[in-house]
Amino acid sequence: MTAVAARAGASQREEMARWTAELHGVITAMFESLDGSSLVESVWERTGGGGGQSRLLADGRVFEKAGVNRALVEGPLPPEAAVRLGVHLSAGSTPHFFATGVSVVAHPRSPKVPTVHLNVRYFELSDAEGNLRDAWYGGGMDLTPMHPISEDARHFHGVLKRACDGFNPAIYPEYKARCDAYFRNPHRDNEARGVGGIFFDHVRPTEQPFGMDAATLHRFVDRVGRLLESAYAPLVREHRDEPYTERDRALQLFRRARYVEFNLLHDRGTLFGLQTGARTESVLMSLPPVAAWPAPTPVQPGSIEAALAAMLVPQDWVAGG
Amino acid sequence: MTAVAARAGASQREEMARWTAELHGVITAMFESLDGSSLVESVWERTGGGGGQSRLLADGRVFEKAGVNRALVEGPLPPEAAVRLGVHLSAGSTPHFFATGVSVVAHPRSPKVPTVHLNVRYFELSDAEGNLRDAWYGGGMDLTPMHPISEDARHFHGVLKRACDGFNPAIYPEYKARCDAYFRNPHRDNEARGVGGIFFDHVRPTEQPFGMDAATLHRFVDRVGRLLESAYAPLVREHRDEPYTERDRALQLFRRARYVEFNLLHDRGTLFGLQTGARTESVLMSLPPVAAWPAPTPVQPGSIEAALAAMLVPQDWVAGG
Repeated sequence: MTAVAARAGASQREEMARWTAELHGVITAMFESLDGSSLVESVWERTGGGGGQSRLLADGRVFEKAGVNRALVEGPLPPEAAVRLGVHLSAGSTPHFFATGVSVVAHPRSPKVPTVHLNVRYFELSDAEGNLRDAWYGGGMDLTPMHPISEDARHFHGVLKRACDGFNPAIYPEYKARCDAYFRNPHRDNEARGVGGIFFDHVRPTEQPFGMDAATLHRFVDRVGRLLESAYAPLVREHRDEPYTERDRALQLFRRARYVEFNLLHDRGTLFGLQTGARTESVLMSLPPVAAWPAPTPVQPGSIEAALAAMLVPQDWVAGG
Repeated sequence: MTAVAARAGASQREEMARWTAELHGVITAMFESLDGSSLVESVWERTGGGGGQSRLLADGRVFEKAGVNRALVEGPLPPEAAVRLGVHLSAGSTPHFFATGVSVVAHPRSPKVPTVHLNVRYFELSDAEGNLRDAWYGGGMDLTPMHPISEDARHFHGVLKRACDGFNPAIYPEYKARCDAYFRNPHRDNEARGVGGIFFDHVRPTEQPFGMDAATLHRFVDRVGRLLESAYAPLVREHRDEPYTERDRALQLFRRARYVEFNLLHDRGTLFGLQTGARTESVLMSLPPVAAWPAPTPVQPGSIEAALAAMLVPQDWVAGG
C-alpha cells in the first residue's frame, strides 16, 4: 500500500469515528429529554484494539432500561468472526477489521410504550499489508410493541418509508422485507420479534446500492441513525403516562422473553459482539430488565394477547410498503 | 440385520422406554409431595417420530415453576444434529436415531431454595439397514444456589459422591470435573452456572466405563435418575419456609438471568432439542418463570452477592472430591 492510500484509509476511519460519536450524542440527548434523567456512561477497552462507550439509563421515569452504546473496535479478525462473515483472504494472512457503530435498545417501563432497537455501523476489512479489501454499512431499526396499538406500527413504518423514499422509493420495501425476514424466532414457528422496520447489512459503497454513490449512501445511513426522534419519540410521549393493568404488564414480560430468545439464540450482532471480544455487559445491554417465561396458556380470541399476536404477522403497515 | 437382532434391538428400546416412564413417575411424585400440588401433563407428538409427556408445576406453593419432562424421539437423524454429534455414517445413508430421557428443572419461589437440574438419557444410532451402530447414556444433575448456603452444596455433592462411589470411586471426581467444565458461561469470564454436580455424555455400554458391564452401567444411570430424593428434597424441606428479603429475591432474579444465558447460548441439550423437532415449550421449560438483567452494579465485599459469587468458583465440596 502506498503512503497516500494508507493516509486516505486512516482519514476515512477517523471520519467514521467522528460520525458515530456524533450520533451517539444526538441519541443520548433524545433519551435524556424523554425520560428526564441522565444516562450513565461506562467506558471499556477491547483487548486487541478499540473499545466503546456504553450509556445506560436504568430505573428511569419512562425507561426501565435503555442502552445507547457506541463501539469502535479493530484488530486482527477473530477466526469465529471470519467464518461467520464468510471471509476468505489469502491463506496465511490474518485479515484486519475496523468497525464502528451505534446500538440502541430501549425497554420502557410501561407496556403501552413499545420497545425500540436501532443500529448503524460501518465495517472495513483489510489484508495483512493494510490494503482495504472490503467495506460496508449495516443497520436498521425495528419496533416491538408490548401492547396491541396498530397506530404505532403505522406511524413508525410511515416515518421510515418517507425517509427511505427521499433516497430511492425501492429502498423501503426491500429493507422492510429484510427486517421481517431477519427478526423472527424459527423455534417459535417463525414468530416475528415485533412489527419490524428496516434492516440492511453488507451494503457496499463500491456497489452504488439503489444508485447511491458513496457520499449519498453515507447520508442515507446517517439519516437512519437520526430517525428515532421522528419515528419513536412521539410514541413515547403519547403513551408514557397512560394507565395499564397487571395483565398488560404480564403480556409485556412474556413478549420480552421472546425478545431474549431471539437475541441469545439467533441474533448475529450479539454473537459477533461476543466473538470479537466486545464487553459482554455492553453486548447484552439489549436484554430486558425483567422477562418472564410463565406456564403456557391458550390465547383467547378477542384478547389483547391475540391482538398483539396478530400484529406480529408481517404485513404492510403503510400504503406502498 | 437378522430378524433376531432386529427383535433384540426393539426389545432393548422398549425396555428403555419403560425405564424413562418409571423414572418420570417417581420424580413427578416427589415434586407433588414437596409442593403439595399436582403437575399438569401435556402430551406432544414429534413430526418424524416419537413425542413426549411434559409435566409442569406452575405457581405452586414451593415451586414457582418446575418441569418434569419425558421424551422418546426417533427417526432419521436431522442433519444439524448429525453435525453436532459428529456422526459420519456411510455416504448416502441417513442414520436413524432413538433417544429417550427424563429432564427436570425446578425453579423454587424462595431464593433460599436452590434450583436443580437433572437429566438422564439413552441414545442409539442405527444405519439405514437397521443395524445398531452406536449407543450411549448421558445425564447428570447439578445445583444452582440463588443464596449463599455452602452447606447445601456440601450436602448435594456428598450424596452424589456416595452414590457414585458405590459403583467406582473414580466416577465422582471425573463426572464432577466434567460438570464444572460444562456448566459455565464463557462470555461471563467462565463463571459457573451453579455449584455443579455430576455430568456425563457418550458413555457407551460397549466400552465398560469404570469397569461397569452394560447392566451395571444401566443401574448406575438409573441411580442418578433417582437421586433427587436424597440430594435435593432435604434442601427444599429445610429452606422452603424461611423468610427472605427483596434483596434476596433480586439476587435470585439476577442469577436466573445467567441461567437463561447459559441455556440459550451454550447448552447442547437445548440446541439438540430445538434442532431435532422436540416441542419448543418442552425444551424451554428449563427457563425460569421470571429473570432480570438489571444495570450492572459493583459487588460489595462481604455481601450476599459476593458470597454467592465465591461459591460459583469450582471447588471440592466433599473430602475426596
